[in-house]
Amino acid sequence: MNVLYHFPLSPFSRKVRLCLGEKKVEVKLVEERYWEQDPEFRRRNPAGKVPVLKMGNKMLTESMAICEYLEDIFPEPALMPRTSDGKYEVRRIVSWFDDKFYHEVTSKLMGERVFRKLMGTGYPDSSNVKAGAKAIKYHLDYMTWLLEKRRWLAGNELSLADFAAASHLSCLDYVSDVDWNRSEVVKDWYAKIKSRPAFRSILADNIPGFPQSPQYANLDF
Amino acid sequence: MNVLYHFPLSPFSRKVRLCLGEKKVEVKLVEERYWEQDPEFRRRNPAGKVPVLKMGNKMLTESMAICEYLEDIFPEPALMPRTSDGKYEVRRIVSWFDDKFYHEVTSKLMGERVFRKLMGTGYPDSSNVKAGAKAIKYHLDYMTWLLEKRRWLAGNELSLADFAAASHLSCLDYVSDVDWNRSEVVKDWYAKIKSRPAFRSILADNIPGFPQSPQYANLDF
Repeated sequence: MNVLYHFPLSPFSRKVRLCLGEKKVEVKLVEERYWEQDPEFRRRNPAGKVPVLKMGNKMLTESMAICEYLEDIFPEPALMPRTSDGKYEVRRIVSWFDDKFYHEVTSKLMGERVFRKLMGTGYPDSSNVKAGAKAIKYHLDYMTWLLEKRRWLAGNELSLADFAAASHLSCLDYVSDVDWNRSEVVKDWYAKIKSRPAFRSILADNIPGFPQSPQYANLDF
Repeated sequence: MNVLYHFPLSPFSRKVRLCLGEKKVEVKLVEERYWEQDPEFRRRNPAGKVPVLKMGNKMLTESMAICEYLEDIFPEPALMPRTSDGKYEVRRIVSWFDDKFYHEVTSKLMGERVFRKLMGTGYPDSSNVKAGAKAIKYHLDYMTWLLEKRRWLAGNELSLADFAAASHLSCLDYVSDVDWNRSEVVKDWYAKIKSRPAFRSILADNIPGFPQSPQYANLDF
C-alpha cells in the first residue's frame, strides 16, 4: 500500500494528493505534524518536511520531484504536455507558485494565521499578514493575465501548474484569504478545478481548532 | 545571440551558466542588479529575479525550468539520467539545494555578508550568519553520506544535481564560507567539478568591493 505522509494545509502535500488523485493511484494518507520533528519521521525524510510518499520500499520527497516521477511512471492522464516548450511553461509556473507565491503569500498568511498557533510560536505578526494580503492581489492579477490567453494556467490543457496554484489558493481559501471577486476568470478556473473528483479529499479536510471557511467546500462559491 | 541576464553571485544563475557551458551553448552574459528593479528588466521577467535566458524571441525564467528545457533541446552531453528513478533523484537533490540549502545556508551567509552591502540594507545580522555557519556543517555531512555511495551526488554520472550543489558552494567559497577540511570526499568532488571547462567563467567572476577569497579560483585548494 502506498502511503502519503502529509499535512492537510501544506500546499506541497496538496499538489501531490491532486496528482495521485487525478492519476487514480491509491494511497493511504497519514497526517504528519512535521514541525514536531518526530525521529521516526526524520528517518523517512532527512529534510524534515512533508510530503513524503512511500511507494513499495521507496521513500520519495520534494513535491515537484515526486509529481514528475508520478508523471513518468503513470503517464495517463497526462499532467504535463509533450512538447519542450509546453513542459518548460508548466515547470516555470509550478516554480512561480511553489517559490515566489509561497514566500510572498502562503507563508505570510497561513504561516502567521495558522501555523504559529499550531506550532505554538506566538501571535501573528501583522506586518507579515499585511504584506501577504497585498501580494496576493498582484498574483491574482498575474493569473488573470495568463488565463485570459489560455484555458488553463500553462496552456490549453490541465497540468501540474494548475494543481500547484490551486494547492496554494485552496489552503488560503480554507481561512478565507482569497478574494474571489477580484477576478472572474480566476474564479471560473478555480470552480473547474474544485469540481474535479481529485479535489474531493481536499475539500473534506478539517483541522481541529480551525474550522473551514463557509465557501471552502462549496462548489458554488 | 543568446543572452543570459544573471548576477555573478546568484547560485541560480550559476546553475544555468554551468548547464549552458557543459552543453557548449554560446551565450552572452549580461550582469543584472536585479534588486534595483529596473523596469526594463521587470518586463523581461515579472518575477524580478535572475537568471533570465533570452533565446531567439523566448524569455526563459526559473532556473530549474530553464535547465530542464536546455536538457530537452540539447540532450548531449546528458545532465539528466534516462531512467525515472534517476531523474527523480536528480530533481530531489536540485530541490534540496535550491530550496533547503538556499534558505538555511546561502541566503543566511551570502545574504548577510554580501547582499546587504550590495543592496544597502544595513549591517549583517549576526544571528543569521551564525545559523548559516552551523547549518552548512549538516549539509556537508549529508553530501559526504551521498558521495560515499556514489561517484556524483545523484548517481554515478555527473548531473544537474552536482551543478546545483556546486553553484551554491562556489558562491559561498567566493567569500570563504566553506570549510573544505570537513570532508575529504566533498573536497574531491568539488575539485572534479571545479576543473571542468564549464566552470572557468565562474572562477573568473569578480564583484567590485568583494575580492575573491584566495582559494576560490585555485584548482589545488
